[in-house]
Amino acid sequence: MESKNLGIEDKLFNYIIGTGEEMPFYNLLGVRISAVGPGYAELSVTTRREHANPLGTVHGGLLLTMADGSMGNAIRSLGMIGITVDFSTAMIAPAPFGEEIVAQGRVLKAGRNMIFAESKVYAGDKLLADTRGTFYRTTDINIKE
Amino acid sequence: MESKNLGIEDKLFNYIIGTGEEMPFYNLLGVRISAVGPGYAELSVTTRREHANPLGTVHGGLLLTMADGSMGNAIRSLGMIGITVDFSTAMIAPAPFGEEIVAQGRVLKAGRNMIFAESKVYAGDKLLADTRGTFYRTTDINIKE
Amino acid sequence: MESKNLGIEDKLFNYIIGTGEEMPFYNLLGVRISAVGPGYAELSVTTRREHANPLGTVHGGLLLTMADGSMGNAIRSLGMIGITVDFSTAMIAPAPFGEEIVAQGRVLKAGRNMIFAESKVYAGDKLLADTRGTFYRTTDINIKE
Amino acid sequence: MESKNLGIEDKLFNYIIGTGEEMPFYNLLGVRISAVGPGYAELSVTTRREHANPLGTVHGGLLLTMADGSMGNAIRSLGMIGITVDFSTAMIAPAPFGEEIVAQGRVLKAGRNMIFAESKVYAGDKLLADTRGTFYRTTDINIKE
Repeated sequence: MESKNLGIEDKLFNYIIGTGEEMPFYNLLGVRISAVGPGYAELSVTTRREHANPLGTVHGGLLLTMADGSMGNAIRSLGMIGITVDFSTAMIAPAPFGEEIVAQGRVLKAGRNMIFAESKVYAGDKLLADTRGTFYRTTDINIKE
Repeated sequence: MESKNLGIEDKLFNYIIGTGEEMPFYNLLGVRISAVGPGYAELSVTTRREHANPLGTVHGGLLLTMADGSMGNAIRSLGMIGITVDFSTAMIAPAPFGEEIVAQGRVLKAGRNMIFAESKVYAGDKLLADTRGTFYRTTDINIKE
Repeated sequence: MESKNLGIEDKLFNYIIGTGEEMPFYNLLGVRISAVGPGYAELSVTTRREHANPLGTVHGGLLLTMADGSMGNAIRSLGMIGITVDFSTAMIAPAPFGEEIVAQGRVLKAGRNMIFAESKVYAGDKLLADTRGTFYRTTDINIKE
Repeated sequence: MESKNLGIEDKLFNYIIGTGEEMPFYNLLGVRISAVGPGYAELSVTTRREHANPLGTVHGGLLLTMADGSMGNAIRSLGMIGITVDFSTAMIAPAPFGEEIVAQGRVLKAGRNMIFAESKVYAGDKLLADTRGTFYRTTDINIKE
């Protein structure tokens, strides 16, 4: 499935999607970056038995990973790199198998040193997890020609 | 490597270790339950390239998953089942590759409805992540003979 | 200043505003309930020197208190009572003195046992704090005639 | 009651206790700094009716404020100043009236840019609240002779 550019420069969009496709942890879990816009990124996965926890639903770790990644890429959509320093999630509903799960990350404020973001994880229009993340801003993205 | 029983009933210990070994998400990530005691559980993993994030270190999602699982199993060591409702982590230091990472989960208070726990994730004696989790208590574990 | 009813039953609205006016901790801090709607509540305060921290800005504890209270009253607007079990805040910007600070609490999901809410604290249109709260649902509100 | 110096330089100890005594928000709430040691600080309060919430127990905002302050002063005990950027608390048990409540703040790691701390709030030996805080490190404390 093609990833959507919701309004950032093509060069930056291709860079973000490219690093997502080559990213070992996303490939292991079957997660992909499905959309990127200004201060916004979506990660998607189709849940399967490999994602199961002992209770027979999807392991919360998958949702936590997607929430973290959607915020990290929302930050990258602004040309910035942020390292997660704090991460907090409400697990509102369990994720079912065989469904498309989408994490929507948004930057709330990008300061000089700290970046604040949030992520909401959905199955269809059902809210599964609500996350806040705080990031330390390191360098900016510098794409080589 | 053998898992350590730090002082719970053998039947419960074997049940917990058994469900861990059959758990799809742990097997996908290479995570195992390395020790269980009363109100305590340890999860271990040897980090490898498959766990990488775009910054060239281990993806935070692996640590978040281990923290969540170590608290969930610490709760099960008391014969209880808890569903994660809230989860909050400080990401203190990045995790290196090729090292043994251990998440130590501890129950702080098991109430009638809510269970509070914490988890600390280490590489050797270096603290990588500090987590608090809040769980809703459902049923108790009932092991069939 | 009058409190606004944004669409709940008058009896419940008057009950909520009345308990707010008689509430010792709100009176100590100068906080009042300024608006209530379905699944929504606003708390307001005008910051003054009494609210200062050692850095010469408003103490974060005031914002934390308002965030907590705005979520608790948003829950009460649904006729429910929830006890805070988990509370997490990003402190995005310091609060200035002599300004109207408003905390907007919203219920995200009211389940049978757990209630999830969020609160955003503003000075004008500047976001100061972003909070998530998880609540255990006890009894429903029963207003005596 | 006298504040205890648990092992930091007298000049720094007197500075911290002095700013606490002059601090408007602490005075409003009746909170005092009762002990300071290396990377550690205790805040104490005797709870009274003024601290009440609508449920007839102590408002959670008092505990949140004490947790925040105990971590901030634990950081100052190292000669550093940290601004709260993230704050997360489990509310484990309600605080009773007429009792001494103590918040014990501890620095977990003081990095070059970020400082991680925790706080536990007790009534006697009963744990009421468990908090983690993340702070941005600004300048160091410079005490004028």
